[in-house]
Amino acid sequence: MKKAIKKKVNAAVLIIGNEILSGRTQDLNVSFLAKWLNEVCGISVAEVRVIPDNEKKIINNISNLRKSFNYVFTTGGIGPTHDDITAQSIAKAFKVKYEFHNEAYSILEKYYGKVKFSTGRKKMAMMPVKATLILNPSSGAPGFVVDNVYCLPGVPSILKSMLGGLNNKIKGGKKILTKTINVKAVESEIAKSLEAVQRKFKKVEVGSYPFFRLGKIGVSIVIRSIDEKKIDDCYKEIVSFLKKKKINMTGKK
Amino acid sequence: MKKAIKKKVNAAVLIIGNEILSGRTQDLNVSFLAKWLNEVCGISVAEVRVIPDNEKKIINNISNLRKSFNYVFTTGGIGPTHDDITAQSIAKAFKVKYEFHNEAYSILEKYYGKVKFSTGRKKMAMMPVKATLILNPSSGAPGFVVDNVYCLPGVPSILKSMLGGLNNKIKGGKKILTKTINVKAVESEIAKSLEAVQRKFKKVEVGSYPFFRLGKIGVSIVIRSIDEKKIDDCYKEIVSFLKKKKINMTGKK
Repeated sequence: MKKAIKKKVNAAVLIIGNEILSGRTQDLNVSFLAKWLNEVCGISVAEVRVIPDNEKKIINNISNLRKSFNYVFTTGGIGPTHDDITAQSIAKAFKVKYEFHNEAYSILEKYYGKVKFSTGRKKMAMMPVKATLILNPSSGAPGFVVDNVYCLPGVPSILKSMLGGLNNKIKGGKKILTKTINVKAVESEIAKSLEAVQRKFKKVEVGSYPFFRLGKIGVSIVIRSIDEKKIDDCYKEIVSFLKKKKINMTGKK
Repeated sequence: MKKAIKKKVNAAVLIIGNEILSGRTQDLNVSFLAKWLNEVCGISVAEVRVIPDNEKKIINNISNLRKSFNYVFTTGGIGPTHDDITAQSIAKAFKVKYEFHNEAYSILEKYYGKVKFSTGRKKMAMMPVKATLILNPSSGAPGFVVDNVYCLPGVPSILKSMLGGLNNKIKGGKKILTKTINVKAVESEIAKSLEAVQRKFKKVEVGSYPFFRLGKIGVSIVIRSIDEKKIDDCYKEIVSFLKKKKINMTGKK
């Protein structure tokens, strides 16, 4: 993890699954993973890709993303069925063998018992030869890590239960801090002033997001940075122009 | 749209927005767009990318995706604020000028009235010079099309209201048909038989998705194809092995 000493550490998330692309399943992992990486690890997600359960596409994307980003997190395709091809594809991407992982084999054999440890279940112990495990407290089958690529399951509840085990294993950078200001206004009323603020604070990311909910309409101004001082100064600047414009700040949207 | 006469027509979806990458906002557009493209247009989403509001990244992704897929649908970044840079970036990707679109200008001027048609709002009439409009029945500001790239807003309710206008403008292929079988089983019980079915029906996509909800556990077997006969035959084959294995099919999960 040579690159992880950089101030800003980034990751790509690779969602592997036809069911997300068909719209059948609503992805919930991106937002959960992104928040966890931000808040717990100080890693910002810089790109997300959703691709089908297709070996060639998995290999191409892994080969490309692992060189472009500090970390890659994959979700999906590590179960027992024929369409679960993440592990064998990752092995090919790293040009290493795909074989039984002794520790994973023992864990799964213990979990299911010798009699019920079927061929399908044994498949979940097959991994790229260099892999280390990400333990799974909720349903036995572990995820795995090869170099800077972390492979997690697609089922959100299981994925969440596995992140705890990674807490101290991932080297992140400075945490990205966020402040949000919700205002009773439409975007075009604040566009010009906000642009001036963004120009002044180049190291702060200033975002503007309209909301229409529960009969209320407004804008969330979100400022993000790894620098607490800059985020405070930027916040003050925005509050000051809002006061001048007599635009009310509201609580939660 | 030369490629659109192929039997299978595909699309990439490019989500442009820091708020999705930070996890602050849960994307809802991918699943909605994917279903609409499948069911209404006969287009399957083959890849999704989420990237930040960054000009270079938008240009690179558009340049790449529009050559690799029949269609590209972007969401986000077409509002009035400084972080809305989709239109200008698309212009650069196509190497065309970015200027006022007369029709968009008239629509917006009419919508806001001359007095309230501020600089921020005028920005929403700036587009790549070759663009045609995607009309917006819910909030005035139109999306636009350049060649095979369709640019839509990020706010889900507005995006949805705009798709109606595209119904007969997008040339799709054969519709992708789907059948789902929900079973009371765990994946490993059906893994081997399902793999055999997939091997027999190469033109049908057979997916297996475990679910754990409301105290129930089971698997959804999803079969997808543009060929109705094949999907029916595949369905029968699966039902037959389920009977042999005495695995119960359930209704809705």
